[in-house]
Amino acid sequence: MELWFTENHSEFARMSIKVGEHIYGEQSEFQRIDVFDSPEFGRFLTLDGLMMMTEKDEYAYHEMMVHVPMAVNPSISKILIIGAGDGGVVREAAKYQGITKMDMVEIDEQVVDVCRKYLPQTASALDDPRLNIYFQDGLRFVRQAKDEYDLIIVDSTDAEGPGEGLFTREFYGNCYNALRENGILVNQLGSPYYEADARAMLRAYGKLQHVFSDIHAAYQAHIPTYPSGHWLFGYGAKTMQPTDVSPEWEKLGIETKYYNTNLHRGSFALPTYVNKMLDTGKGQ
Amino acid sequence: MELWFTENHSEFARMSIKVGEHIYGEQSEFQRIDVFDSPEFGRFLTLDGLMMMTEKDEYAYHEMMVHVPMAVNPSISKILIIGAGDGGVVREAAKYQGITKMDMVEIDEQVVDVCRKYLPQTASALDDPRLNIYFQDGLRFVRQAKDEYDLIIVDSTDAEGPGEGLFTREFYGNCYNALRENGILVNQLGSPYYEADARAMLRAYGKLQHVFSDIHAAYQAHIPTYPSGHWLFGYGAKTMQPTDVSPEWEKLGIETKYYNTNLHRGSFALPTYVNKMLDTGKGQ
Repeated sequence: MELWFTENHSEFARMSIKVGEHIYGEQSEFQRIDVFDSPEFGRFLTLDGLMMMTEKDEYAYHEMMVHVPMAVNPSISKILIIGAGDGGVVREAAKYQGITKMDMVEIDEQVVDVCRKYLPQTASALDDPRLNIYFQDGLRFVRQAKDEYDLIIVDSTDAEGPGEGLFTREFYGNCYNALRENGILVNQLGSPYYEADARAMLRAYGKLQHVFSDIHAAYQAHIPTYPSGHWLFGYGAKTMQPTDVSPEWEKLGIETKYYNTNLHRGSFALPTYVNKMLDTGKGQ
Repeated sequence: MELWFTENHSEFARMSIKVGEHIYGEQSEFQRIDVFDSPEFGRFLTLDGLMMMTEKDEYAYHEMMVHVPMAVNPSISKILIIGAGDGGVVREAAKYQGITKMDMVEIDEQVVDVCRKYLPQTASALDDPRLNIYFQDGLRFVRQAKDEYDLIIVDSTDAEGPGEGLFTREFYGNCYNALRENGILVNQLGSPYYEADARAMLRAYGKLQHVFSDIHAAYQAHIPTYPSGHWLFGYGAKTMQPTDVSPEWEKLGIETKYYNTNLHRGSFALPTYVNKMLDTGKGQ
C-alpha cells in the first residue's frame, strides 16, 4: 500500500508527501488534527488538512519568528505567544536566559496535548517553568493586557478557522496596547506567490501597517513544506528598527540551524514584486 | 479529463501541476522536450520530465543570473552564456546597452527552436543582433576562448544528461581562462534542501570554489516551481566582490520584477545550515 498526503497549494498546484504511518487523527472542538510520519520530512502536523509543521524544516519557521525580534532587543524579558500549540516558538524562546515569563495563549488544548505526545521535537520546552499556557481565545486574552510585554509573537493559523479573530484590526490594536515602549510584534503573513495566499498576506500586512504605523516591515524565509516555499513574516514595533541587530546577540551563544544575523538583515530585502504588493496593497 | 504534470522532488515528495494542454512533446538528439500550458503557471518547459521554467516565475531565476553580476560590474560588455536555450538569460542581458556581444552555446538546437515557437515570453530577444548562437558542446567551446569575456553565465541542466561536461573541474578551469581580469562567472547550483540535490549542489560549488579560489560565494532565491523552491546560484570572480554593488547600476534604469540591489546584497546571506554545508562540503 502507498499512502500519500496531498495539499492543494492552489486550485491548480499540489504538493504530495509520502506517508509512512497516520499516527493520529481526531476532530477537536475547533478543528481536525492529524499527525503523520513520513520518510522525507519526519513527523508532520496538519490542522484541517493544511500543513502546520514538519520535523524536517520547522526550525526555519520557528527560528525566524523568535530570533529576529530577540536579536533586535536581546533584553526582552516578558513575551506573549499567540497560537503556537506545537511548542516550536516556546522551544526557541526558552533558549534565552533573559526571558523571565512566557505567556502562551492557544485556543485548542487538544493541539497541545497531541504535540506533547507525538511531536517531542517541537514540544520539548512546554514544561519550562517560565511558561504559562492559557487555553483561551487570543483576541480576548490580549484585550486585558496593558503595557505588559516586550514581545508578542502571533503564530496563528490562517484567517479562516479558529484563528480568525487574530486577523482583525482590533486584535492588532490590542497587541499594540499590550506592548511596552520598546515592544515588538511579529506575525506570520503567509506567502506572496499564489493569488489567494497573496490576498490574505496583504490583508494581514495592512492591519500591521495600520496599527504599527511608524515601524513596520516584512521579512522572508524559505520553508519548502509551506505553499510555494516563499514565506513572509511581519514585524511591527513602537521604537525599534527591524534591521538594527544588537551586537549583544552574538554574545549569547544561541545555537541555530537557520537564523544568523547576516540572514536577519538580508531577510528584510524582498523581491521587487513583493515590495510593490506591500506598497500598493494589491496583488500582481 | 484531468491532466496533471507531476515531478518527483525526492523519492518521497512530489509537486503536481494542472495542465490545460500538452502543446509539444518530442525526443531530440539529446533529450525529451515537452511544453505544457497550465492555468496556474502559464506555459512551462520540461527536459527529460524535469521542470526547466514556467512563465509564472522564470523571471526570478533569469534576473538573478544576469543582474547580480551586471550590478557588480555594469561595464560588462562581452558575455558568454552556456545553455539557456529558452532565451531567458539573453532577454535579461539584452536590457543592457553596454553589452556589445553575447555568445550563447547551447548543445540542443531543437530546444531553441521549440522555445522560439512556443515560449515567446523568454525567447523574445533571441533575434538580438548582438547575439551569436553556437549549437555546440559548451565544454569544447570554452576550451578555445582565452581572456575574452567579462561574464560567463552557466545556465545548464543537471549533472546527469547532456549538460554533464559542464559540471567538470576542467570546464570551470577553462571558464576561468576565458574570463578577463575583471571577469565574473555565475552558475546555477541547485537546491540545498533534498539530500540528493544538496549533494549535487555541493559538487558544483566545490568546483567553483577550487577554480575561483580567491572570490567565490553562493546566493539564493525563491523559485517555487523548482524542487523545494530554495535555489542557489554560484558566483566566482577574479577581482570583483559579489556584494560590492556599483552605484552606476541604478542609473541604468533596468526594470525588474524580482531583482533589486537590496535583495542582491541580502541574497548572499544564507541560512546557517547552508553555510555549514558550503564550508564543510558535506550535507546535513
